[in-house]
Amino acid sequence: MSLPAADEQILQQIFAGNRRALSRLITRVENGGAALVPLLSSLYTRTGKAYRIGITGPPGAGKSTLTNKLAKSFRAENLTVAIIAVDPTSPFTGGALLGDRVRMSDIMLDGGIFIRSMATRGNLGGLSEKASEVAGVLDAAGFDVVIFETVGVGQSELDIVSAADTTLVVLVPESGDAIQAMKAGLMEIADVFVMNKSDHAESDKAVHALLTSIGFRDHNETTWLPNVVKAVGTTGAGIREIRAEIEKHKAHLESRGLLVVKRLERERRFVKAAIEEKWRTAFWSGEREAELTKLLSEKLSPYEISERLTQNGF
Amino acid sequence: MSLPAADEQILQQIFAGNRRALSRLITRVENGGAALVPLLSSLYTRTGKAYRIGITGPPGAGKSTLTNKLAKSFRAENLTVAIIAVDPTSPFTGGALLGDRVRMSDIMLDGGIFIRSMATRGNLGGLSEKASEVAGVLDAAGFDVVIFETVGVGQSELDIVSAADTTLVVLVPESGDAIQAMKAGLMEIADVFVMNKSDHAESDKAVHALLTSIGFRDHNETTWLPNVVKAVGTTGAGIREIRAEIEKHKAHLESRGLLVVKRLERERRFVKAAIEEKWRTAFWSGEREAELTKLLSEKLSPYEISERLTQNGF
Repeated sequence: MSLPAADEQILQQIFAGNRRALSRLITRVENGGAALVPLLSSLYTRTGKAYRIGITGPPGAGKSTLTNKLAKSFRAENLTVAIIAVDPTSPFTGGALLGDRVRMSDIMLDGGIFIRSMATRGNLGGLSEKASEVAGVLDAAGFDVVIFETVGVGQSELDIVSAADTTLVVLVPESGDAIQAMKAGLMEIADVFVMNKSDHAESDKAVHALLTSIGFRDHNETTWLPNVVKAVGTTGAGIREIRAEIEKHKAHLESRGLLVVKRLERERRFVKAAIEEKWRTAFWSGEREAELTKLLSEKLSPYEISERLTQNGF
Repeated sequence: MSLPAADEQILQQIFAGNRRALSRLITRVENGGAALVPLLSSLYTRTGKAYRIGITGPPGAGKSTLTNKLAKSFRAENLTVAIIAVDPTSPFTGGALLGDRVRMSDIMLDGGIFIRSMATRGNLGGLSEKASEVAGVLDAAGFDVVIFETVGVGQSELDIVSAADTTLVVLVPESGDAIQAMKAGLMEIADVFVMNKSDHAESDKAVHALLTSIGFRDHNETTWLPNVVKAVGTTGAGIREIRAEIEKHKAHLESRGLLVVKRLERERRFVKAAIEEKWRTAFWSGEREAELTKLLSEKLSPYEISERLTQNGF
C-alpha cells in the first residue's frame, strides 16, 4: 500500500527523530478519523520493539516521581523512553497546579525522553484505545520503552495500564481505608508491586501483609506471582530492584511465549473496540435516531424499542 | 402481551410488598437474560412515579451517613425509600469491613426502606444499565424515592448517579489535593453540592470557594446553578436544607418540562446500550472470533483487520 506523499514525509520526519512531527501526529491520532488509517497501518509494521510498562496506583502514591527515576535509569543505559501520562494527579498532566509535587523539568530537558499527556475527560470511552494507538506510534518511532502512567481510580485507566507488557502498582504504607477501597481493582492487575515511601515506619508491616495476601492466591509452579519491591521514589532507592523485577517478569513472559499471547490479546481488544465504534456510527443514522425518538415518545418499554429497532438486523 | 403465570405471580407478590420476591427479581435482573424481557416490559408500564436521587462524592465524604439521614427524613413523611448502593467504600456494600463506619442497622430494620447493594467489579461495562433496570423495578414496585449511592471515582459510577433526576455531590472541606483531583468529573454532574462535616473550621472557606467557581460558569436566568448546602451527616444538620434544594431542583425541572426530557434521555441511553450489547453478541460469533484470530496471526494491522471483518457489513 503506497502512502500519500504528505504522509510519507511525516513518517520520514518521525523516523529522523523530529519531535514536533511526532507530537503533531499524536494530536491527529487523538482526534481520530479515517484519513489516518493508511499512515497508522504503515506505522504498525514497525511496532513490536518497544517494551510497554504500565504504572498505576492511588493518588499521592508517588507514581510520577518513580516514573521519573525509572525513566532516568533506562536513560543511563542509553535506552530511549516515551511516557504517556493519563493522570489528573500527575505533574506531567498539570497536576502540579494542585500542590508541591516533584518537578519534572530535569527529565523534560532530556532529548531521549518524550512525554505526552492525554486528557481523561471528554473521550473516556475510547481513552484506552487512543492510548494504545499513541503507544503504537511511539513504538514505531523507535522508543525502546513506553511507560503509561495513570491513577488507578477508574476502569478505563486500569484498562490502559493493564494493556502494558508489565504493570507496576505503586502503593504506600500509610494509605487510609478510602485508598484501600480504591485498590480493589488495582490488586488484580499488578505484575509487580512497589511499596513506595518505604522509609515509613509502617512499611515492613504493609509489605508483609501484601505478600501474605498474594500468597493466598491460587497458583502453581508456572504462575507468575507478583513480588513486592520497597522503594523511596524521592531518593531513588529501590529503582534497581524494580528494574530487576520488570526484567524477571519479561523473561517469564518470553520463556513461555506469553508476551506474544499478551500482545495478541491487546490487539484483539483494539480491533474489537474499533469495529464497535464503526458499527455505532453506521447503525445510529439520523433516521434511526429519529425512529428511536418517536418510539420513546410512544411510551414503549426500552425492551420493546430495542426489539423493534433491530428486527431487521443491525 | 400476556405474561407467563409464574411471572404474573412474581408481579403480584412484588406489588403486595413481598420483599423476598423483590430481591429475587433484582438478582435475576443482575444476571440478565432474554427470559426477563416480558416481565420487565410489563413492569416498565408502572414506572415513572419514583423520584430518583443520585448521591456521590469521594471516599470518606460521609455519603452513607447522609443517605441514611436523608432516607429517614423521607420516612418521616411516610414516603418509602429504596437505596441502590454501588460503592466499595459504603457500609451498605460491605465497606464496614474497612473501618469504623456508621452502622446502617437502624434503617435496615425499617420496613419502608429497601437497601440493595450492587457489585462494582466484574460487570463494570453494563453496571449503569443494570442499576437503571434495578431502579425501574423498584420504581414499579411502588417506592416513592430511589437513591443511588456511589463513590465518585470512575466513569461508570458517575454514569449511574448522573442518570438520576437530581444528583447530590458530597464534599468535605478537608479534602486533600488527591481528592480534589478526583473531583474533576464530579463537579460537572452536581445539581446540589453538600459540604459535609461542615462543623470543620475550613468549611466556610471551602463553601465560598465552591460557590465562586460555580458562579464563573456560563449561565443565564434559566440555567440551573447548583447551590452548596452545609451539612453535618452525623448530627443530621443540613438535611432539611438538602431536601429543600432537591425540591427546588425538581420544581425547576418540572416547570420547564425538563424532567420529561431528562428521563427520555436516560431511556435513550438505555436502549442504545441494550442494542449495542445485542449487536456484540450477534456479531462476535465463534466463526468471526476464529477469523479475527487468524488475521491477527498473519500480522495484519488492526486497521486492516477491522476493514476486512466489516467489509460485508455488521
